[in-house]
Amino acid sequence: MTLVEKIISKKLGREVYEGDTVEVDIELAMTHDGSTPLAVKAFKEIASKIWDRERIVISFDHNIPANTVKAANMHKITREFVREQKIKYVYREGEGICHQVLIEKGHVKPNMVIAGGDSHTCTYGALGAFATGFGATDMGYIFATGKTWIKVPKTIRVNIVGSNDRITSKDIVLRVCKEVGRRGAIYMAIEYGGEVVKRMDVEDRVVLCNMAVEMGAKVGIVEADEKTYEYLRDKVSNEELAYLIRNRISVDEKEESYYKTVDIDITDMEEQVACPHYPDNVKPVSDVVGTPVDQVFIGSCTNGRLKDLRMAARYLKGKMVHRDVRLIVIPASKKVFEDALKEGLIKIFLEAGAIICPPGCGPCLGAHQGVLGDGEVCLSTSNRNFKGRMGSTNAKIYLSSPVVAAKSAVKGYITNE
Amino acid sequence: MTLVEKIISKKLGREVYEGDTVEVDIELAMTHDGSTPLAVKAFKEIASKIWDRERIVISFDHNIPANTVKAANMHKITREFVREQKIKYVYREGEGICHQVLIEKGHVKPNMVIAGGDSHTCTYGALGAFATGFGATDMGYIFATGKTWIKVPKTIRVNIVGSNDRITSKDIVLRVCKEVGRRGAIYMAIEYGGEVVKRMDVEDRVVLCNMAVEMGAKVGIVEADEKTYEYLRDKVSNEELAYLIRNRISVDEKEESYYKTVDIDITDMEEQVACPHYPDNVKPVSDVVGTPVDQVFIGSCTNGRLKDLRMAARYLKGKMVHRDVRLIVIPASKKVFEDALKEGLIKIFLEAGAIICPPGCGPCLGAHQGVLGDGEVCLSTSNRNFKGRMGSTNAKIYLSSPVVAAKSAVKGYITNE
Repeated sequence: MTLVEKIISKKLGREVYEGDTVEVDIELAMTHDGSTPLAVKAFKEIASKIWDRERIVISFDHNIPANTVKAANMHKITREFVREQKIKYVYREGEGICHQVLIEKGHVKPNMVIAGGDSHTCTYGALGAFATGFGATDMGYIFATGKTWIKVPKTIRVNIVGSNDRITSKDIVLRVCKEVGRRGAIYMAIEYGGEVVKRMDVEDRVVLCNMAVEMGAKVGIVEADEKTYEYLRDKVSNEELAYLIRNRISVDEKEESYYKTVDIDITDMEEQVACPHYPDNVKPVSDVVGTPVDQVFIGSCTNGRLKDLRMAARYLKGKMVHRDVRLIVIPASKKVFEDALKEGLIKIFLEAGAIICPPGCGPCLGAHQGVLGDGEVCLSTSNRNFKGRMGSTNAKIYLSSPVVAAKSAVKGYITNE
Repeated sequence: MTLVEKIISKKLGREVYEGDTVEVDIELAMTHDGSTPLAVKAFKEIASKIWDRERIVISFDHNIPANTVKAANMHKITREFVREQKIKYVYREGEGICHQVLIEKGHVKPNMVIAGGDSHTCTYGALGAFATGFGATDMGYIFATGKTWIKVPKTIRVNIVGSNDRITSKDIVLRVCKEVGRRGAIYMAIEYGGEVVKRMDVEDRVVLCNMAVEMGAKVGIVEADEKTYEYLRDKVSNEELAYLIRNRISVDEKEESYYKTVDIDITDMEEQVACPHYPDNVKPVSDVVGTPVDQVFIGSCTNGRLKDLRMAARYLKGKMVHRDVRLIVIPASKKVFEDALKEGLIKIFLEAGAIICPPGCGPCLGAHQGVLGDGEVCLSTSNRNFKGRMGSTNAKIYLSSPVVAAKSAVKGYITNE
């Protein structure tokens, strides 16, 4: 059995396999300022009271602070819903991106079944959860009932082996995108493993799982292990941690339960860059070195964590952003911002000439805080480079790690030197 | 003679008086990302080369980082103009609000005649300059010729006397707005003086001059004195400072040269608040205590300086922003941000739950970073509370000092306690 088959089977108390359609109880439901109003509309059509005020988390991250009257009015709808339903966990403007906050605050735990009104809900698989994105109508139904149906997905096993200090988890997941393809994992689970993933801390595993949806996957997942429990130590009670460890679900190494296995050896791998206009249009950085950039964005639910900011700051220290480039840096959460402040990273970014925006999604979805003009080129550490995603449909978006992003911001063109 | 009559007379080498229409050489011209493209359009119709690449300053502050494709494309036009005309002084996205940056970087000096493509250009009077805002067509003409015409304005003398520790320069200027009225100084100069203004440092004088335009004034001005020269000491060369002191222009105390004199004693004055929808609809704070607020904005060219952030942080330290309020804090410049970082103010704001946006105009003009929804109430330290200025035409904006703003953000309603 695959990891996701085991998780859902354990949840249901009976064995289920890929292709089975089952109804499951949702243990955690998340919507943000972009998806909540639509989910509320769907909810109101079928119910007046939510199923559990302690299992719904609302996050303000997409259009914060409000960038239009429309956004401000959507925030009002969201706040009204929170008040009316007495929702317990609300992360307000400036507290960070939903995916980072939910992990950071200990909402996400191994073996959980989580539904989110955002396509990158698959991020939570980094902690061994079965987590996936739903549309607003589904989220409205979940708000009302705490239930949904799932077709147990097939699993693609991705083994990462080798060793390479130049390579970050972002380079690895971009390489996986190239290998699997943007339609290669539709409605499947991507189960990441291998010695490299075993060595990775949770922050790096987050990057792998975050981009699973860019291959069409329902979930991205990594088996919970010592690194997972260590990460959770200061986030959950000792009792709960002991419970989670007792209920550990391990991966079955027998490959026959996988739809497909992909092996990637990173030993001789170069830094990777996704070129316009798809996340699977991935090339080794040397293929695109010299491409001039107008804007560089370091942040997002993919690469806005402390580790990412550290990597960027290490290079930027004492250097200046190229005068033809805007470098936008956005910590993924208030905690990341505060930690970066404490470590002196914010000072480094400011001195280098970076623009620091408040914790949130920033320009990733083209709403504000760095919208691209016609013909502009952006190198971004986010997860999507679709045509028009960050503004003009004539703009071009490249995706890379924070290291390549920082270097390129200083040089004025894409580079790994 | 009034201060502005003396400045223009000295410039022209002949005596001129209020009502005289004269052509003057512009010593410094400023436009920002909002006004540059329009000024460039006007410029291109009459010329191909600017009059002086060292006397034009371009600032990116209004829509930064770009909040729409249109804004991004306007930035492109501005950058193209900078490149083509080899303009020497350019302050890019994140460097701060034009008015703060020009003063901070030593561009503004006493006795200068300055033209700005922004209504709050009158701010520079804080250093004894004759500075006023122009429309785009005028700025285009100035770009081409370095000249403009001015009708020498009448002067309203405003004397501030007394002593009161609770009162900030913002309270004082709001009180002046009430006294003079929003149409009370149309095409006039407001010359601030009196013992309180003499004691004020340049940062406080900036607040007074900044809001002169809210009374319809062409300029707001304070006589250059020891405080002015002290402020300029690290911003200009010793030689230039000596030159400025030698050419000091002092105020003529004879009142007969003034159109009108306004005397304000602050001794028993309460903190002041401008109520919707005009900056002269000013009331003592006790008249509006208890008004619930949805958003508080501390920043802008009026109150985004280090001193303002210090006042707010002193109160906010160890407290939390009310959970129904968004507190948006925006340092007026990169230097203010860096100084605030060094002093630990940024840490205090973050811990209090404030949202910190990058140096720029922020939500002041309703473009982004805190746009108001229908029926919302904002208390802002900026200079204008016109209907619809910050978003919805059904929103209400109150104006106050950073102290009242910080207290209100914690309490959830307007208060000075």
